[in-house]
Amino acid sequence: MISAIIWARLGASMTIKLGIIGAGRIGRLHANTLTTRVPGADLLAIADIYEDAAKSAAAEYGIADFSSDPAEIINSGDIDAIIICSSTDTHCRFIIEAAQAGKHIFCEKPIAFDLAEIDAALAAVAESGVQLQIGFNRRFDANHARIKGAIEAGEIGAPHTLTIISRDPAPPPIEYIKVSGGLMMDMMIHDFDMCRFLLGEVEEIYAMADVMVDPAIGEAGDIDTAAVMLRFANGAIGTIENSRQAVYGYDQRVEVFGSGGAVSSGNWHPNAVAISDASSVRRDLPLHFFIERYMDSYVAEMIAFVEALATGGKAPVVGNDGRAPVLMALAGMRSVAERRSVRLDEVEA
Amino acid sequence: MISAIIWARLGASMTIKLGIIGAGRIGRLHANTLTTRVPGADLLAIADIYEDAAKSAAAEYGIADFSSDPAEIINSGDIDAIIICSSTDTHCRFIIEAAQAGKHIFCEKPIAFDLAEIDAALAAVAESGVQLQIGFNRRFDANHARIKGAIEAGEIGAPHTLTIISRDPAPPPIEYIKVSGGLMMDMMIHDFDMCRFLLGEVEEIYAMADVMVDPAIGEAGDIDTAAVMLRFANGAIGTIENSRQAVYGYDQRVEVFGSGGAVSSGNWHPNAVAISDASSVRRDLPLHFFIERYMDSYVAEMIAFVEALATGGKAPVVGNDGRAPVLMALAGMRSVAERRSVRLDEVEA
Amino acid sequence: MISAIIWARLGASMTIKLGIIGAGRIGRLHANTLTTRVPGADLLAIADIYEDAAKSAAAEYGIADFSSDPAEIINSGDIDAIIICSSTDTHCRFIIEAAQAGKHIFCEKPIAFDLAEIDAALAAVAESGVQLQIGFNRRFDANHARIKGAIEAGEIGAPHTLTIISRDPAPPPIEYIKVSGGLMMDMMIHDFDMCRFLLGEVEEIYAMADVMVDPAIGEAGDIDTAAVMLRFANGAIGTIENSRQAVYGYDQRVEVFGSGGAVSSGNWHPNAVAISDASSVRRDLPLHFFIERYMDSYVAEMIAFVEALATGGKAPVVGNDGRAPVLMALAGMRSVAERRSVRLDEVEA
Amino acid sequence: MISAIIWARLGASMTIKLGIIGAGRIGRLHANTLTTRVPGADLLAIADIYEDAAKSAAAEYGIADFSSDPAEIINSGDIDAIIICSSTDTHCRFIIEAAQAGKHIFCEKPIAFDLAEIDAALAAVAESGVQLQIGFNRRFDANHARIKGAIEAGEIGAPHTLTIISRDPAPPPIEYIKVSGGLMMDMMIHDFDMCRFLLGEVEEIYAMADVMVDPAIGEAGDIDTAAVMLRFANGAIGTIENSRQAVYGYDQRVEVFGSGGAVSSGNWHPNAVAISDASSVRRDLPLHFFIERYMDSYVAEMIAFVEALATGGKAPVVGNDGRAPVLMALAGMRSVAERRSVRLDEVEA
Repeated sequence: MISAIIWARLGASMTIKLGIIGAGRIGRLHANTLTTRVPGADLLAIADIYEDAAKSAAAEYGIADFSSDPAEIINSGDIDAIIICSSTDTHCRFIIEAAQAGKHIFCEKPIAFDLAEIDAALAAVAESGVQLQIGFNRRFDANHARIKGAIEAGEIGAPHTLTIISRDPAPPPIEYIKVSGGLMMDMMIHDFDMCRFLLGEVEEIYAMADVMVDPAIGEAGDIDTAAVMLRFANGAIGTIENSRQAVYGYDQRVEVFGSGGAVSSGNWHPNAVAISDASSVRRDLPLHFFIERYMDSYVAEMIAFVEALATGGKAPVVGNDGRAPVLMALAGMRSVAERRSVRLDEVEA
Repeated sequence: MISAIIWARLGASMTIKLGIIGAGRIGRLHANTLTTRVPGADLLAIADIYEDAAKSAAAEYGIADFSSDPAEIINSGDIDAIIICSSTDTHCRFIIEAAQAGKHIFCEKPIAFDLAEIDAALAAVAESGVQLQIGFNRRFDANHARIKGAIEAGEIGAPHTLTIISRDPAPPPIEYIKVSGGLMMDMMIHDFDMCRFLLGEVEEIYAMADVMVDPAIGEAGDIDTAAVMLRFANGAIGTIENSRQAVYGYDQRVEVFGSGGAVSSGNWHPNAVAISDASSVRRDLPLHFFIERYMDSYVAEMIAFVEALATGGKAPVVGNDGRAPVLMALAGMRSVAERRSVRLDEVEA
Repeated sequence: MISAIIWARLGASMTIKLGIIGAGRIGRLHANTLTTRVPGADLLAIADIYEDAAKSAAAEYGIADFSSDPAEIINSGDIDAIIICSSTDTHCRFIIEAAQAGKHIFCEKPIAFDLAEIDAALAAVAESGVQLQIGFNRRFDANHARIKGAIEAGEIGAPHTLTIISRDPAPPPIEYIKVSGGLMMDMMIHDFDMCRFLLGEVEEIYAMADVMVDPAIGEAGDIDTAAVMLRFANGAIGTIENSRQAVYGYDQRVEVFGSGGAVSSGNWHPNAVAISDASSVRRDLPLHFFIERYMDSYVAEMIAFVEALATGGKAPVVGNDGRAPVLMALAGMRSVAERRSVRLDEVEA
Repeated sequence: MISAIIWARLGASMTIKLGIIGAGRIGRLHANTLTTRVPGADLLAIADIYEDAAKSAAAEYGIADFSSDPAEIINSGDIDAIIICSSTDTHCRFIIEAAQAGKHIFCEKPIAFDLAEIDAALAAVAESGVQLQIGFNRRFDANHARIKGAIEAGEIGAPHTLTIISRDPAPPPIEYIKVSGGLMMDMMIHDFDMCRFLLGEVEEIYAMADVMVDPAIGEAGDIDTAAVMLRFANGAIGTIENSRQAVYGYDQRVEVFGSGGAVSSGNWHPNAVAISDASSVRRDLPLHFFIERYMDSYVAEMIAFVEALATGGKAPVVGNDGRAPVLMALAGMRSVAERRSVRLDEVEA
């Protein structure tokens, strides 16, 4: 829906020339989106250190150029903006290089696991004056946007509490978990962003977490189940619950409760059909995972990015929006480790 | 979802070259779909007797050629298939011309208001051996397809009854109503097709109908509210209820009840959000109309058409699927006029 | 809920002394209700031609007197009102006797299968001036009452259509079916009453019906599946669908659609719990049958009856409310037999 | 439903003679229940230090005796069991006196605010061998019982997390708040009990709480909004969220998530009716407060108590079930005060 509306609004605006770094799952998703559903986007090139990945993506999505060297794209005179979809440890480097090359930047989350590294990247962006948008796609989801709208329109009065339940259908491979930065940095970071998107800055975090799904996750040094309680700067209280494995599929629900009422989102199912038989009244399982559930939000975030560049507007999820959830993840991890409530300014210090 | 799945399945199949006749609302919808979301489709031209319409559509959707003469498209040696989106009174003529030119055909519903005219068009199609797919897009909707699947999988046993509620958010302009063939030919025809899609052939129809929404519709010779009861060849009983105006938006629900249970579809809403305040617990209105509600099914029907042509498969909604609902509409209109139950073979005779 | 509210309102009103005729399932249900949940009711006696039935009911519900002779109760000087729960063929006789004895009367539905017999009973009631309430308990159900309230409050504007789906979990014994008067007289009669309760008088009925559930029902001369279309005096159109067997339990839904919106009821479940597992998201089946689903309405109708007598008010479901649905059932049965639409005034004549 | 089922099961068991201490709201609720809906219960007397309250309750519910002296009831030779509904500060005294008089005891929650006082009462109960049931009625609610059943039946596998949202429609009077023991002792204590009922013992509690609803509550030394995180002995993690004021009514939802799925309860509404108009699709507000929402559970807990006494069975919510939630409330309050996680054994010590 959103895309169609914005599409119509965009009309005949100028074209933005883009290049993607990283031809993995998310890079290909953006390639598909940019070549079919983002008006004004002209995807010229894709790079991946594995040349075959770049080549096959180029073939599949009809991208003119591919390369095994990201620098070629970053430094191409034809390209206006870079979409960074490479592994997290390379994000800041590419942000800095792109900023120095005067390219606008869209970077997947998390920017990095380290605040100093992030600060260096954000400084480069600030210095160059390019735009940087972070890939917190959920802000563009119809449910989350409606919740935000309800709050802003005063439909629920002053917010008192926020409750997020966010469960994946299955854990990623152990190899991925080892480099993911951990559940809070890789998975809950979306929920940390959602907290800030809906109710603003957070001051304090308390977490309980454990390995309940798969001992191998624990052996890899991570947790697979976590609950977090947060205190917002405006006084509101939030809770987040994460699990790496909900056998019934992707579980993505948010509720904000306030002085005037509550706004709550449910899951999306592949159809609105109920079947009643001799044993139950049942629905098919929710949309399985983020590709299915959040596809429209990936389109919408990219439309917003391209539209901002094309119209000279401001990209909607900026550098600090990428940094703050990392700070929250660090506080959450410290809370688990030290079994106590942690203030964000402790981590900042 | 459907499109993405089929998309992946299609892989590297051959390209089908298409031309559209008719640059009105539905023609432009298909133009958008074919140029952005249908793999293997290459939309080369669009024609409209109003050249400006064809020209602007060509510009908007990046179509190479446009024309005020449909014959140019029908007879173009470059084109494999014709998408007929012109006014209903021209459908059969273009079907016959396209069939004679050896072009595969996708034609919007209804084929025509007159059985003899339809029979002539279907004969031309049969003689030429081209494929003809009729634009009953709802068969490709996730809800309706799930209901069909439940029946076929035996999830509800032997079907006993079918209930369709189908209401538009607002009537079309009176000028359109005058040439629409009437509610049963223009609107309920989708529900007649749904009856056949789900439970097979119908033998008898009884209708009650009236003008309840707008007297101007009655003055134009039409009705705006109708209920129909049908007897299927397999013995099942169906009811359809139509209104031209549901103030809460597009209402599209189907229920099939059988010996082993029931399957029912609800409406789709723009989000899965509920707001509770001091007066009620409420959701936003359902998706407003067919563009919003059935967009994915328009994409899916076109993917199915192009895929059938590309793979040498059979198009999924054939000529008689276009004829039979017209027969049902004629029976329904006779039932209203004569205040009695009408057998389809009476109309056929 | 209702009972508690009315209870409080009743306060210290006078006591009504009652006797029940018929100690079968519904007679015992009313005995239970009257002795535990109806303020102001004093159930003094129960009669059944099977003395053991009367005796055991008296013991179970703490009723002082029992008898095998209904006349003893009808003519008892201690009793103000008679609850007639005997077999349908005895209703009119007991109504007449009770009316002549100056007793107020509550009579189960249907009054009788024959209009002349009903008219004689209603004449006796009119002559004596006693009150007669008919046991259309569903009018007192929270869902149906809310739908009625929505219509009366103008929440949906002018009603255009009414849709009732009413399915039993399983057919009654064949022996019962043989004396039941048939599906339309025994089961759909509740829905005919609901039509009148919600939208007023009906003028014309068309029915399609068949044996789909159990051939033995057909051999007993009845149908088990029926759909009916009705035209109301106010121009609205209604449809009713009945089945004797929904394997998922009692299915009781009503929708009224109008110029300003729609009001729809869903089924009641024993809990508001959903279970999500690897195969579906499911709820427990709806409340199984009328005892579970409509218990509160049985209480409420009896409170209304006793309250009317205690306060000198008017009983809420009067003689003609018992007669009109019988007329509708007769029209419906004639429509099935003659395969045509039947006007109620044809049956009346 | 429950009551009817158990009722039938009870059959002709012996009668239990009861007396109530306390003729306030909850005492009268139990008086009503015991006199109308609990088979085998014979409510003989009610006492209240305000004699008028006892007198009016006796009149309203048809109780033979009333008194301003609880000792009269406790020491009456006719009475088998005492229902303690007086103010919390008197509970332990009456428990001890009743135990010493050999009377079985039903006591409202919380037993007391002080562990030592509770321990003395429980010791007296143990010594006398009478039964003591605590008034945690929610265990008898159809939703909570279904959730418990799903866990026990393995429908969701091993429980990982528990989420309780529990909000009142409006705060009690400030005068009540001052003697209530505070939100955690008065309101969240039900949720603490629900935690134990569903997932067993709790070892550690962390709480964030504040005054968001009404500053007067803060001035009275209490909080009105609280979130709590708990660690269960079995490793599961729980969160509870409480607010004293949900403007949309009583909000009572529980979700348990496990290795095999999730079970979640929704709110109960007064009807299952949806109204669609030009602005929204809406339902009436949930049942307003505990009287409406939990009435059936009050009946069921009293049936269970009387049945246990009548059959020599064991009362289902015993002394330690009353003590443990008080311990949890004390830990929660300490967590708020000291802004840290608190282990229950710290409070116990």
